Amino acid sequence: MTAIVPFAERLHEAIDRKRSPLAVGLDPVLDRLPPEVLRAARDRHGERPAGVTAALELFCGGVLEAVEPWAAAVKVNIAFFEQYHLPGLVAYAGVLAEARRRGFLVIGDIKRSDIGSTAEAYAAGHLTAGPGGAASFAVDAVTLNPYLGRDGIVPFIRTAVRHGGGVYVLVRTSNPSSVELQQLPVGADTVAGHVAELVARWGAEVGPPDGYAPVGAVVGATFPGELAALRARMPRTPWLVPGYGAQGGRAEDLRAVFDARGHGALVNASRSILYAYSTPARTTSGAGAWKDAVAQAARQAAEELEAVRHAGS
Amino acid sequence: MTAIVPFAERLHEAIDRKRSPLAVGLDPVLDRLPPEVLRAARDRHGERPAGVTAALELFCGGVLEAVEPWAAAVKVNIAFFEQYHLPGLVAYAGVLAEARRRGFLVIGDIKRSDIGSTAEAYAAGHLTAGPGGAASFAVDAVTLNPYLGRDGIVPFIRTAVRHGGGVYVLVRTSNPSSVELQQLPVGADTVAGHVAELVARWGAEVGPPDGYAPVGAVVGATFPGELAALRARMPRTPWLVPGYGAQGGRAEDLRAVFDARGHGALVNASRSILYAYSTPARTTSGAGAWKDAVAQAARQAAEELEAVRHAGS
Repeated sequence: MTAIVPFAERLHEAIDRKRSPLAVGLDPVLDRLPPEVLRAARDRHGERPAGVTAALELFCGGVLEAVEPWAAAVKVNIAFFEQYHLPGLVAYAGVLAEARRRGFLVIGDIKRSDIGSTAEAYAAGHLTAGPGGAASFAVDAVTLNPYLGRDGIVPFIRTAVRHGGGVYVLVRTSNPSSVELQQLPVGADTVAGHVAELVARWGAEVGPPDGYAPVGAVVGATFPGELAALRARMPRTPWLVPGYGAQGGRAEDLRAVFDARGHGALVNASRSILYAYSTPARTTSGAGAWKDAVAQAARQAAEELEAVRHAGS
Repeated sequence: MTAIVPFAERLHEAIDRKRSPLAVGLDPVLDRLPPEVLRAARDRHGERPAGVTAALELFCGGVLEAVEPWAAAVKVNIAFFEQYHLPGLVAYAGVLAEARRRGFLVIGDIKRSDIGSTAEAYAAGHLTAGPGGAASFAVDAVTLNPYLGRDGIVPFIRTAVRHGGGVYVLVRTSNPSSVELQQLPVGADTVAGHVAELVARWGAEVGPPDGYAPVGAVVGATFPGELAALRARMPRTPWLVPGYGAQGGRAEDLRAVFDARGHGALVNASRSILYAYSTPARTTSGAGAWKDAVAQAARQAAEELEAVRHAGS
């Protein structure tokens, strides 16, 4: 039996090996895929539903190839597969397998929430191998929603720890209306501040006393003024930081998310990398040229973030 | 083109037709299925993964048959299918199709949460037919988590309304640790109270001025002291009430959830009906006897709730 390597060690090994804290988000939408990908899928498998599966797998496979040198992790958002019902989820399992094969740390962006035995069921569905190898949804870490309290989180943590995996709990999300609940005042604190304390506590229950816990936090890059204060409340919590790139978060605002060794966070970019081939500045032609545009956008993000990661040390 | 019937009308038509506000929750766990079901699935399809799909479909199909006279709706919790990865979700699509065929109002208990275009993707995944008929996850209504604010809810509402569907937003969940966030004090109010106001407002934006909106609330039966106050804050909000039965909520505490016509709420029971055949009082033998136990438990729940539903009128 292989020894289980704790999640934070695997996370930081991946970041240091790639020299990049970048996580590339896979959010595929059929209408936005390169025409050559759609054509190839249709030619081989027809329109629907098999062609849907093939198009998603071809596109995401190309992205994984293109970003492999530049990204420590991929964050695969299951919603963009679930939108195509079963044919989409067949592709989800295929994309996860390909991401694992290429050595990425794989985050399932599932934002699930349920309680007790139902949370255990979701945990079995995303943090264990499952009943059939090729049809597995197993990932290294998942994102979770905290509205139900610890009953909705601890079952995932238990399953994750057994497999060297982790969880990332939504604390402060990057969208405008996140203020409606997350910034409600609770005495002198906020709901999000309170959740930050809970996340730190849940991590302390299972993490090493002097290192990062397997219990992480999702903290958006779009509210840079809040990052340092939240970091102080969650010093041993790995962060997953969305909102960089297309949503407007800037690299220079992200110094507070990294520690002195440049550890402690993954920064995610999705659309700005995934659809780089369709921005006017990067419009390309020729077979496979879309992948060059994706690689170029990933390289630029990785270099920008790597500079910030070491700026404080 | 058929006219779209609004969700609340379909809901109340189903409740009045069945003379029952009962929603039966489908939370299948392989280890708890009747031995004859597991045996039949294994004999026809082998152990895994096809046998997993078959066992879930056989069991849920038998439950749907047994509860059809007694339940207005079924609440299918996708977590219990997702735990078996793709083979489980193949069964989920099959069970939804069978539930629709039998005329149940079908609620997908998905508790999803994400924002903007990602919420739109989930909505397309659960409230539209999708790319391949037999592989569809389409349901009449879904459950949602409010932590991300209106960005995470409104895209679902828009898609639901276009198809005569609805949404149920988690307000006060039935689990013990729901207090950790939901009962945090916000001035003189609580987080859950604040969410109740948001849910009522989102419903008023799309619902009729004098009837129930297509935007519902999940309010657990396990905190009966809070029901009347929450009802007063959400008078035009259809409720989905879990926690009755196995979790300890009692029928006589539920008068406040119904209006004078006995409308406005579905009450859910899952394990107390689903696994009725394995309670000592109802242990049965003989082929198909497990279904009689399920039917008997559903009948008892329906009659108990139907009495309460009309107690205030």
